[in-house]
Amino acid sequence: MPAQLPIQIDRRTRTTLQDQLFNEIRQLILSSRLRPCSALPATRELCGQLGVSRNTVLLAYERLIAEGYLETRPAIGTFVTTHLPEDSLLLQAGRVALKDGTAVRKRCPLVFRGRPHGVYNGGREQLPIDFKVGRPAPDSFPVKRWSQMTAEQLRLASENLTEYTDPAGLHRLRKAIADHLGPARGITVSAEQVLVVAGCQEALNIIARLFVHERTRVAIECPAYQGAAYLFESYGAELLPVPVDTEGLQTSRLPGGEVSLAYLTPSHQYPLGHTLSLKRRLELIDWAGRSGAYLVEDDYDSDFRHHGSPLTALKGLDHSGCVIYLGTFSKSIGAALRLGYMVLPEELVEPARTVKTLLNNGQPWLDQAVLAAFIASGGFANHLRRIRRTYLHRRDCLVEQLHKHFGEVHLSGLEGGMHLTWRIPGDFPDAPRLERMARKEGVGIYSLPTGAAYCKDTDELVARTIMLGYSSLGEVSIKEGIARIARIVVAPLSEEAAVTDSSLCSLNQSAADYRSPA
Amino acid sequence: MPAQLPIQIDRRTRTTLQDQLFNEIRQLILSSRLRPCSALPATRELCGQLGVSRNTVLLAYERLIAEGYLETRPAIGTFVTTHLPEDSLLLQAGRVALKDGTAVRKRCPLVFRGRPHGVYNGGREQLPIDFKVGRPAPDSFPVKRWSQMTAEQLRLASENLTEYTDPAGLHRLRKAIADHLGPARGITVSAEQVLVVAGCQEALNIIARLFVHERTRVAIECPAYQGAAYLFESYGAELLPVPVDTEGLQTSRLPGGEVSLAYLTPSHQYPLGHTLSLKRRLELIDWAGRSGAYLVEDDYDSDFRHHGSPLTALKGLDHSGCVIYLGTFSKSIGAALRLGYMVLPEELVEPARTVKTLLNNGQPWLDQAVLAAFIASGGFANHLRRIRRTYLHRRDCLVEQLHKHFGEVHLSGLEGGMHLTWRIPGDFPDAPRLERMARKEGVGIYSLPTGAAYCKDTDELVARTIMLGYSSLGEVSIKEGIARIARIVVAPLSEEAAVTDSSLCSLNQSAADYRSPA
Repeated sequence: MPAQLPIQIDRRTRTTLQDQLFNEIRQLILSSRLRPCSALPATRELCGQLGVSRNTVLLAYERLIAEGYLETRPAIGTFVTTHLPEDSLLLQAGRVALKDGTAVRKRCPLVFRGRPHGVYNGGREQLPIDFKVGRPAPDSFPVKRWSQMTAEQLRLASENLTEYTDPAGLHRLRKAIADHLGPARGITVSAEQVLVVAGCQEALNIIARLFVHERTRVAIECPAYQGAAYLFESYGAELLPVPVDTEGLQTSRLPGGEVSLAYLTPSHQYPLGHTLSLKRRLELIDWAGRSGAYLVEDDYDSDFRHHGSPLTALKGLDHSGCVIYLGTFSKSIGAALRLGYMVLPEELVEPARTVKTLLNNGQPWLDQAVLAAFIASGGFANHLRRIRRTYLHRRDCLVEQLHKHFGEVHLSGLEGGMHLTWRIPGDFPDAPRLERMARKEGVGIYSLPTGAAYCKDTDELVARTIMLGYSSLGEVSIKEGIARIARIVVAPLSEEAAVTDSSLCSLNQSAADYRSPA
Repeated sequence: MPAQLPIQIDRRTRTTLQDQLFNEIRQLILSSRLRPCSALPATRELCGQLGVSRNTVLLAYERLIAEGYLETRPAIGTFVTTHLPEDSLLLQAGRVALKDGTAVRKRCPLVFRGRPHGVYNGGREQLPIDFKVGRPAPDSFPVKRWSQMTAEQLRLASENLTEYTDPAGLHRLRKAIADHLGPARGITVSAEQVLVVAGCQEALNIIARLFVHERTRVAIECPAYQGAAYLFESYGAELLPVPVDTEGLQTSRLPGGEVSLAYLTPSHQYPLGHTLSLKRRLELIDWAGRSGAYLVEDDYDSDFRHHGSPLTALKGLDHSGCVIYLGTFSKSIGAALRLGYMVLPEELVEPARTVKTLLNNGQPWLDQAVLAAFIASGGFANHLRRIRRTYLHRRDCLVEQLHKHFGEVHLSGLEGGMHLTWRIPGDFPDAPRLERMARKEGVGIYSLPTGAAYCKDTDELVARTIMLGYSSLGEVSIKEGIARIARIVVAPLSEEAAVTDSSLCSLNQSAADYRSPA
């Protein structure tokens, strides 16, 4: 006769009695306390023991049989399954090494070597006034319109919601993007060259999978966008940093020999904000011809050009098909949309589509359908007009406040985008320190490393550069934020500020080239 | 005096006159027909020549100056910029090799070697009756509820739409998933171990980046899901196929030595549909201890268990932390959502989160917020109950029709999921041929390769196996579809069928083990 089972039933938890019984018996078997072939109590007995209904026991036994833990022998009873591997059970119970003498190996090691870039703010405290870089104004999101469009697209969706979508993206969205790029960026492409992705970051992954393995040579701006540098690094690339000055990437310092990729931000250099000059654009395309490199143009915030017509993209100059163009809706609509696109030279269209298919079978249908409708209806153009005006005012307000409190200030990146950089004077605390001091006053300002910039051998630049995003802050907050910084700096320099190393004031070439606003 | 510019203005296109003028002059410069330093006509002259307003010419000139093509010399005139690199211009015009003698290199080669798996149906014709595998019923999508929830989440979103979201996923969604996995799959995990991804396919990429490089050993079912096999292959893995039979993967044939990963579908083997037996589950976990491998459990369609209680996942047996569990909402709600998740052993949580950050900064906020609300409100549980009933009826209808038309049929994978496999008799045309014949009659049925199965050395299995998805077809269509197939097969065998190679009828072990439904 089987002994009573050592089972505890807890009537206070939310787990059903049947589930508890199932789990307890299963655990007895897996921990080898109930051995293979041993008999279980009859259901009648067990329900008496536990004070539960017979049905509860019957259903638990049934499930244990279905999952292979128990077996019935007609007219005899219910038993722990005969053929369960005893070694496994003892191993599960943590009692023995494997009987056959083989050792338990350490799990296979990670081959991944990488570090995350810092765009997500979650770990940081919420600051009352935060000059975050590259964030759209929260109240600019077209909530009402988006609700309506979503309802409409859902109504018309039919099987599109349950089916797999074209991994290259919804055709009408690709068409809308291609049509937008002509007037907006001077790029003439067909919808077929447009691949919809989850943002520039995902686009960079697709490019890395296409071209990068151990020791692939990748030229990159210095300083550069961290998300790109860390990504290529994680694929094993050899990064070749090229310094930037006020005309953007210094083409004269591009590496010789074969190079696979050059990553750059020609419209509004990240992080410093300079625009790549026409002369250098042409030289860069020449260099691509000599080095064999594809040029990766990350046009992250080019929707905001504060003066004159929109600037033609580097891609618009590209007659040899060497430019891979990346665009995003993270800056123009919202980062949480996770929608962007890449424009590919013909020969890369199919390989990139294959990588995207293998990666995640494409972007969600509904988000694409809503965005396509938003662009096609003219809603996107209106939205851009509206926020451009807002961001221009905020930029002007920020510049004015900086002048008001600090007199002549050295700023760059004013022509466009959503942030500017400020070369702080030599008698200020260095930038990382100033950032910490401001944070204590509830103001978020960013030195290059915390502003998601990749900096190599740029200590002096790091010490003297502050990034100020203005797009997500109202003018009242901008005024208050700059006033608080002024109070920190102008107040008798605290002990912390006093230890500023004056050697940091000798600026290197790229920093010295900052200009003051006209 | 500068000559007249060879410019054509077209008044019939939608491009503005100013844009046309800008483009034409820019093209003259880039093609080196207007050389550096050459003078441009005065605006007054040019507007006379072209018959456009002076303002149009002024604005075009202004933009060309802003972009660096032209420069003004006060009181003298407007000129093509002096310092433009002539070599570049000539190169752009396609006229000369680089003057400095360096050759133009071929673009850097692709390092990517991969092929896309076939889940997207876009390239194929629309068939009136399509037994597609693994597609939810199109009319099952909760359209109205989704509209309402989206509107509500948008209303409450505040800065969540414009900010970057936690790359690991929205915490309340991770919590809802963790809570769901206890009762549904017998898995006890914290929200912190759940990583939200774009579906199982993306999860596999994250795993590949963590563990796979050139010649990493990856065990895989044979036949297996194509999307997994092709993916690991594209990362350079050495695939080690392990045959399956009616108890699932044959543990006795697992490879020896160190192995990094084993990919499998224990609940409903893809493509054949078997459930991995408890004995083998335990043996597999032992093997993981000996080989050092992580077991990747792809639980793609486990929400549908047609008999008894839900089956405990392999992860539910895992006390040593060797199982990485993958789940998806593609099968339970809709593939176009692109939402799934992975459950990670503690030590992989941070590395996987880093990979996901570098990959695409996480999933869209709105989709996650709506899904979390759907689960938390009980809507998901109701939805599952409803469609489970529907799919069970459809499965029963399909089995009944097969019996009716073909007598005793050998089916597998009936216990759960959204498709079954049919071992067709030896006197039928082989499966790929039957598939083509059915297609001509407007009926989609799938042999293993077109059903997104990876098959290596399984010619006989391929010849005799047909996959039939039933979840997206109404009962009327199921009846008509099977009747049409019966007409094809029962009709005097056509010339095409007559050439069937009888050698294909000798089935290999795994195919011979198919069982007939009870």
